[in-house]
Amino acid sequence: MHTGANLPPRRPLPEGFLARIEARFGSRLQAGQAIREQHGSSESHYEAMLPDAVVFAENTDDVVALVNLCAAADVPIVPFGAGTSIEGNAAAVLGGISLDLTRMDRIVTVNDADFDCVVQPGVRREELNLHLRDKGLFFPIDPGANATIGGMASTRASGTNAVRYGTMKDAVLSLEIVTPQGKVIRTARRARKSAAGYDLTRLYVGSEGTLGIITEVTLRLHPIPEAISAAVCSFASLEGAVDTVVQSIQCGVPLARVEILDALQMRAVNRWSKLDYAEAPTLFFEFHGSAAYVAEQVATVEALAQGNGGSAFDWSDRPEERNRLWRARHDAYYAAVNLRQGAVGWATDVCVPISRLAQCIVETQADLATASMPATILGHVGDGNFHVVFSLDPNAPDEWSEVEAINRRLIERALAMDGTCTGEHGIGLGKQEWLVAELGDAVDQMRMIKRALDPQNLLNPGKIFAL
Amino acid sequence: MHTGANLPPRRPLPEGFLARIEARFGSRLQAGQAIREQHGSSESHYEAMLPDAVVFAENTDDVVALVNLCAAADVPIVPFGAGTSIEGNAAAVLGGISLDLTRMDRIVTVNDADFDCVVQPGVRREELNLHLRDKGLFFPIDPGANATIGGMASTRASGTNAVRYGTMKDAVLSLEIVTPQGKVIRTARRARKSAAGYDLTRLYVGSEGTLGIITEVTLRLHPIPEAISAAVCSFASLEGAVDTVVQSIQCGVPLARVEILDALQMRAVNRWSKLDYAEAPTLFFEFHGSAAYVAEQVATVEALAQGNGGSAFDWSDRPEERNRLWRARHDAYYAAVNLRQGAVGWATDVCVPISRLAQCIVETQADLATASMPATILGHVGDGNFHVVFSLDPNAPDEWSEVEAINRRLIERALAMDGTCTGEHGIGLGKQEWLVAELGDAVDQMRMIKRALDPQNLLNPGKIFAL
Repeated sequence: MHTGANLPPRRPLPEGFLARIEARFGSRLQAGQAIREQHGSSESHYEAMLPDAVVFAENTDDVVALVNLCAAADVPIVPFGAGTSIEGNAAAVLGGISLDLTRMDRIVTVNDADFDCVVQPGVRREELNLHLRDKGLFFPIDPGANATIGGMASTRASGTNAVRYGTMKDAVLSLEIVTPQGKVIRTARRARKSAAGYDLTRLYVGSEGTLGIITEVTLRLHPIPEAISAAVCSFASLEGAVDTVVQSIQCGVPLARVEILDALQMRAVNRWSKLDYAEAPTLFFEFHGSAAYVAEQVATVEALAQGNGGSAFDWSDRPEERNRLWRARHDAYYAAVNLRQGAVGWATDVCVPISRLAQCIVETQADLATASMPATILGHVGDGNFHVVFSLDPNAPDEWSEVEAINRRLIERALAMDGTCTGEHGIGLGKQEWLVAELGDAVDQMRMIKRALDPQNLLNPGKIFAL
Repeated sequence: MHTGANLPPRRPLPEGFLARIEARFGSRLQAGQAIREQHGSSESHYEAMLPDAVVFAENTDDVVALVNLCAAADVPIVPFGAGTSIEGNAAAVLGGISLDLTRMDRIVTVNDADFDCVVQPGVRREELNLHLRDKGLFFPIDPGANATIGGMASTRASGTNAVRYGTMKDAVLSLEIVTPQGKVIRTARRARKSAAGYDLTRLYVGSEGTLGIITEVTLRLHPIPEAISAAVCSFASLEGAVDTVVQSIQCGVPLARVEILDALQMRAVNRWSKLDYAEAPTLFFEFHGSAAYVAEQVATVEALAQGNGGSAFDWSDRPEERNRLWRARHDAYYAAVNLRQGAVGWATDVCVPISRLAQCIVETQADLATASMPATILGHVGDGNFHVVFSLDPNAPDEWSEVEAINRRLIERALAMDGTCTGEHGIGLGKQEWLVAELGDAVDQMRMIKRALDPQNLLNPGKIFAL
């Protein structure tokens, strides 16, 4: 398996430390092998790096108490949510305590008239949307997995709706943070915008738990649209699909979702979800608005698609059909991994200016065509962001080094196009070298901030960059 | 006049310093009284605080050279754009060099297919939009004044279009920054989104030139809508106006602009711009979209308005009429100040959750009703953000302390409603006390970041917070 960056040595726990934690947390401290493995592994391709123990927090006071105990003993803390991150973001590189926040799962307030809500970090996005439905509101950020809101904020998650509704940087209005010094701060008031000082909210969003621990999140919500339509359209070429999206944006169509899947990914989806779509480059669309406006959007985009070699739209505004379609899209990762029996997945992502997207995907496909394992492409085409999912034999070291080389070429290709080494997965362990290639000396500014806010390197050490 | 926060003493220039600057910059160093006054004053109510000299930069190398010379001599640098900020943000509190960036006014690239452009910081937003018009694109952020893009990024400006298109935090994709150490960094690639490390872009946006000097800005653009309509609607009550906006958002209407003006502000506008609108609480709307969709939006909102005591819409889709309307809105500040002859203006702003907006405005109006000077209210109602403009006798000290007290009550009212002490003007000199009231210990995190990135306190010292 993959170990990621060059890692510093684990810090040994000081004598009597776990006894002090147990005195405060009782049975909410757990150090069994199974629970440590669950908290040291992830859905993606990193080898397990186990914490020494797991602590389950139930409120902000618990988090403060843990931070104070760990700071006094110089023991690392790794915040942990659903465990669905993909770049080793929650691995316990130096050991220490995995701080499980999933019991902090209360929806504190929904402010209907303000289109916002306050939640604890362990709330999962699907549960939040179930809760909001009766109020006519929804939380749009959808990375696929049923991640926790705290985890999504930490990795600056985005996903299928980002082209219309933005990413977690846009969705988070304010955070409650426990600092490495054990202080509880709030980064902003609940006002929709502010020019009051440095934008701490956006600094903590995407900082992967390295600067502070998120204990409450205020989220921006949106009214559920009057009408929603979904459509599927296959294309003779990838360029035709991408051109359709660019032209739709030029025409001012506010695409709510627009996903691209390559031919192999469509084969995987058909097989996994028992569907019979054309096995060709395909766009999955979703349109939001009033009934008349959605009809107009569909007509505009369908006409553009047909001018670019697209099929007739296979479209639907019935919820059950839409859900079936998006379920298939959400399962695309599992579908891709399971193109081979017994395989494990390695998912990577890059994001480029949309004018370079077709070229970037076509060149990547050419590279994948020579690979020894199945590898599919799927992405959020409106943002220029796409994923490659490799289906790997866990017992074939050659395949792992082959994927490493392909991933390297993919990222170099994206950077050469003024793109980023990760559109939405974060840096974690796997992309530290590329962060430096991408941003150069700017990474020094990040290091200065980390050293200033967490001088002990207590929080999620070993992530994003080497100090 | 107003002096703002308690200020540290000016730093005297070291001997021979200006000669060293002149050796590098020649006649682009200017130290005459008039130019120093122009760079030490602002449009708002602060007393002039003059720099020792002004340097005009023409490129990034100039900025690096100046930073290195100033760092060696411990001389402050205050970045300066159009001089249209309102909280004393560019005052030379400790003296030093005012770095005028208006000659860096080149539009470097427009990437049509990517809906972005790269500009130097001295480009002004109106000139940028003139340049973009032929390409079918526009830059939506509109704070009223024809500010520079660098200044707008520094203060996290927003304005009339923010309800639909966001603020400068949403508009800026990437920045080139000269650090206080004289290094040139780029905060992000040109990809539309990224999860690569800390969000440095958003950290510098709104930092008021205290962390680094912006030398290039990559901006997100939008296609010019196929159809634009503007409408004016007066209401029997402020609540009716605010309820109309909340209900419109609930119905999913993507209002492009929605401005509220109180009765006195409408009288001022009528007088200043020679118009004859009803002198009652009024909404100015703008709708963007396809022709059919704009018509639908207008119909939806007009029906809601009439259910809330609104007049019939006075509406237009002809550019010259729309421009006349928005010209009047943009001149509202001058109109309000000129309610009295020879008066000077003091503009303040707060932002609250929209559910509290009507109450906040009504209570503020009651407070203003007893004031000795004219004071109007106007705001960006979709964001919960509003301004109060006082028309002051420059020679009546009592009026100044009266406004200080009203401003204090206004901000306390907004904070009590979970609002912010400034929606879009920034902290500058005038709101430092309120930043602490608003965010408490979180301001310490800002101080830690400032100390880490600018340990010499070289850049725009004395702003946002005391160190």
